[in-house]
Amino acid sequence: MSQYRVLIDANDEKGLVHKISTVFYSNGFNILSNSEFVDKENNKFFMRSVVDGDMDLSELKFALEEVLPSSANIKVIEPKKKNIIIMATKELHALGDILIRHEAGELDANILAVISNYQNLESLVVKFDIPYITISHEGYERAEHEQKIIECIDGFEDVDYIVLAKYMRILTPGFVEAYEDKIINIHHSFLPAFIGANPYKQAYDRGVKIIGATAHFVNNNLDEGPIIAQEVIHVDHAYGWKDMKRSGKDVEKVVLSRALKLAVEDRIFVYANKTVIF
Amino acid sequence: MSQYRVLIDANDEKGLVHKISTVFYSNGFNILSNSEFVDKENNKFFMRSVVDGDMDLSELKFALEEVLPSSANIKVIEPKKKNIIIMATKELHALGDILIRHEAGELDANILAVISNYQNLESLVVKFDIPYITISHEGYERAEHEQKIIECIDGFEDVDYIVLAKYMRILTPGFVEAYEDKIINIHHSFLPAFIGANPYKQAYDRGVKIIGATAHFVNNNLDEGPIIAQEVIHVDHAYGWKDMKRSGKDVEKVVLSRALKLAVEDRIFVYANKTVIF
Amino acid sequence: MSQYRVLIDANDEKGLVHKISTVFYSNGFNILSNSEFVDKENNKFFMRSVVDGDMDLSELKFALEEVLPSSANIKVIEPKKKNIIIMATKELHALGDILIRHEAGELDANILAVISNYQNLESLVVKFDIPYITISHEGYERAEHEQKIIECIDGFEDVDYIVLAKYMRILTPGFVEAYEDKIINIHHSFLPAFIGANPYKQAYDRGVKIIGATAHFVNNNLDEGPIIAQEVIHVDHAYGWKDMKRSGKDVEKVVLSRALKLAVEDRIFVYANKTVIF
Amino acid sequence: MSQYRVLIDANDEKGLVHKISTVFYSNGFNILSNSEFVDKENNKFFMRSVVDGDMDLSELKFALEEVLPSSANIKVIEPKKKNIIIMATKELHALGDILIRHEAGELDANILAVISNYQNLESLVVKFDIPYITISHEGYERAEHEQKIIECIDGFEDVDYIVLAKYMRILTPGFVEAYEDKIINIHHSFLPAFIGANPYKQAYDRGVKIIGATAHFVNNNLDEGPIIAQEVIHVDHAYGWKDMKRSGKDVEKVVLSRALKLAVEDRIFVYANKTVIF
Repeated sequence: MSQYRVLIDANDEKGLVHKISTVFYSNGFNILSNSEFVDKENNKFFMRSVVDGDMDLSELKFALEEVLPSSANIKVIEPKKKNIIIMATKELHALGDILIRHEAGELDANILAVISNYQNLESLVVKFDIPYITISHEGYERAEHEQKIIECIDGFEDVDYIVLAKYMRILTPGFVEAYEDKIINIHHSFLPAFIGANPYKQAYDRGVKIIGATAHFVNNNLDEGPIIAQEVIHVDHAYGWKDMKRSGKDVEKVVLSRALKLAVEDRIFVYANKTVIF
Repeated sequence: MSQYRVLIDANDEKGLVHKISTVFYSNGFNILSNSEFVDKENNKFFMRSVVDGDMDLSELKFALEEVLPSSANIKVIEPKKKNIIIMATKELHALGDILIRHEAGELDANILAVISNYQNLESLVVKFDIPYITISHEGYERAEHEQKIIECIDGFEDVDYIVLAKYMRILTPGFVEAYEDKIINIHHSFLPAFIGANPYKQAYDRGVKIIGATAHFVNNNLDEGPIIAQEVIHVDHAYGWKDMKRSGKDVEKVVLSRALKLAVEDRIFVYANKTVIF
Repeated sequence: MSQYRVLIDANDEKGLVHKISTVFYSNGFNILSNSEFVDKENNKFFMRSVVDGDMDLSELKFALEEVLPSSANIKVIEPKKKNIIIMATKELHALGDILIRHEAGELDANILAVISNYQNLESLVVKFDIPYITISHEGYERAEHEQKIIECIDGFEDVDYIVLAKYMRILTPGFVEAYEDKIINIHHSFLPAFIGANPYKQAYDRGVKIIGATAHFVNNNLDEGPIIAQEVIHVDHAYGWKDMKRSGKDVEKVVLSRALKLAVEDRIFVYANKTVIF
Repeated sequence: MSQYRVLIDANDEKGLVHKISTVFYSNGFNILSNSEFVDKENNKFFMRSVVDGDMDLSELKFALEEVLPSSANIKVIEPKKKNIIIMATKELHALGDILIRHEAGELDANILAVISNYQNLESLVVKFDIPYITISHEGYERAEHEQKIIECIDGFEDVDYIVLAKYMRILTPGFVEAYEDKIINIHHSFLPAFIGANPYKQAYDRGVKIIGATAHFVNNNLDEGPIIAQEVIHVDHAYGWKDMKRSGKDVEKVVLSRALKLAVEDRIFVYANKTVIF
């Protein structure tokens, strides 16, 4: 018996559920869980099923392709640990949260390496038996620096996700394109409020009563990629911007880890610069 | 073209989704939305679909019965305004919230009447052109008083739900059985904490940092029926119990109205003293 | 025995609490509650005390002026119901929430009138024995229309606050200046995200996972005045923008009523386009 | 210049703020922040001030004792890192969160040691250069086992707090009395709901829509000590109790760390089995 995650999106039309469930049924699969959504505005159908049965992955995929329209994207995925690379700068909280989850066996992922432009987190990371690679940006132009990171990443096989755990440098379009829908970032504001640098200072200056954090896929426009998860906390006039920053760290790490969990469990569809999450 | 809400629960077995979606497809129905859940512990399958097509309601129901196992409960419901009766005592906030939603056309229900054991809310309710019936408990034993309410309720036709909008008297098993899974109550605590009288005083005495409210169906055990919705707010040491009570009102009314919305939209399954909500 | 709310802000300097508490003590006042805050960035001191004693209001104010630096703003306020005018357009939920609170005796305010540019809410409002004044904008230039509203407002005495309960027209600088720090608005987004028109549509298009509402004082820049209160709710991909709008109404009304409560209880200082709230 | 935290509670009477602020002022202290609260039900006054000035700690304390009533408890505390001992069993998340905060320099405390009745967390803890002491309960009666822990703890000097980071054994009254108001526990439910063993299973069986965690001081009655902090998250029918447990971990760790932060910053008064927190 094998378990598969089946992710399908297609232009909506009558009978999709019928066709898909017939493939499952007639090939002896049991549906363990099933989620569907139709985006009526865009006439788009999304479905994620977890099934178990005796068929090969490629045969199941082929059987689905046989009955579904050509607009359909069909993924049949065998659940296994995803491979991730974490990029960080100097802050520990978001990275540390992932390390602890990994150590506790709660993260369905292998951490291939931590890459940072600074060395200060190395002594901790290596204690977790995870390679730490410092690629300083000092003395390099942005493109050169990124090229070195790309070479480093591409030295690993089967990288599923690149997690920016408070990596504080803006990535160029070239870098982003190289890993489309694979880069997950945590932005330390409730996007789209306070795009850009030092959002806590911006939030403080605006006098908001709530601050937040946003995990999103990275696309070419800074802080404008598809949002995966958001969370907020209440603040008041007694919070200076450094208090906001300090309190915000708890939100950042929880939101990033939540987004990462959704990603490694294959629960996210990206579509029209948004996410559908089951 | 008719639109139906189809609610099915059954003992889980392989092929249920296939069978149901085949009925929809072969009879020309389009699935507008679809939610499923399998309670693995109890081996129970739940599905709620919204479909549109040309078939009669009873024919669709029959077609589903033909293919589904005998354990299946099948409801095919034509969306229309539900009929509700509201019971209140003296407090206005929860009742008032429902009245305003009703007036604004946001509540998918007809309010047949408000029944209270006090007269003080009458002048307001009648302004909304809703009958207000005072059935005082003074001078009556509990069973007698309830009998008068039952007679009053049964004077209305097709009552779908009885909403206890801070009705402050405990109902006897006889009353509750008469309207099984039809009575929705708002309890002013985060159940199961603080069952019974004056939960805000209990919460204050315990020194909690969060208070809440719980909307639930009423069964024979006080405050122990299936929970529909819960919400909380943070409090601190500066809240006396009356402050908690005052702040709690906002939570109570929002939670009760949210539960009522779920009920009138046929989104709730009751099972094993819990709710499955789509 | 009289009870006063004493609100003081001043440039911070050593001894302010000592001086103020000495005035209270030496004049026989008892401090019922006391809140202070120092904005260190701006070197600004804020204090709100509730005291009771036998002295006249003006004498207490004079005694405080005697000892405090010239930078101090001193308000000594006798607690009494504030007078408010509500402005609305067509939506009922925010207005209705205030009406119900008012009816339930939970709002420490007299509602002098509801002014709207449409007539559709009149039948309900007058049932609460509150004057409803329709001032249509049809056929008038913005300034003319506002002038008629100003004349209407100025026909009432001692207006403490003007509450924009989903008043959907942008106010000109002239109107805003006429009622500085007196106009409370509810904006249907988590400001500063989604300034301007149809924020729920903007939020939907951006694919956010949280939506919110913001109550703020109105200044000349649209949606940029000092924030009083904010609240949010979680949404997901299944929410169309109309679903967001519908769900957002519950947040809007609760936040506006919360802000109004803070205002009528004299709990808000406005400073540097922010609020200090005790 | 020295900075002190001054914590005073006393039976309430007129003039306390005046007397305290006069001591500060006449001895040249500047008030950096100040919070007060009067529990009117119990006629109890609480005040926490942060002041800086040139006087010795003991002199300031003496000056305050001179003017305050005999009911007053006066603490003058020099801010410095608190010494804590963490007790754990097998779970890593709450302990790990504290370790990461400690490593990041965000926790105002020295971790003297981690004591556990199991060995499995040792390899990680020692990587942080923190002593790990395994005191197995195997083969010992409860009192004997606790005696060994007490001896271990008492081998350290100046232990300010004992943090139970998911220490899963019930402590006897003898142990609790030995460290009154010093033991901080995280209970994995929204107390007082689900006292005792496996609260997530209890919550699942009850069908709640919200789960939570509670950090509290430990007293003799299980899970009934003064509550410091609580937090909740929403769940739905799709959460089995293991899903609740998994999701609850994020709440547990954040709440415990928040409570610990409040404790080490001397922000908590314990009174009448409750906390006053500034």
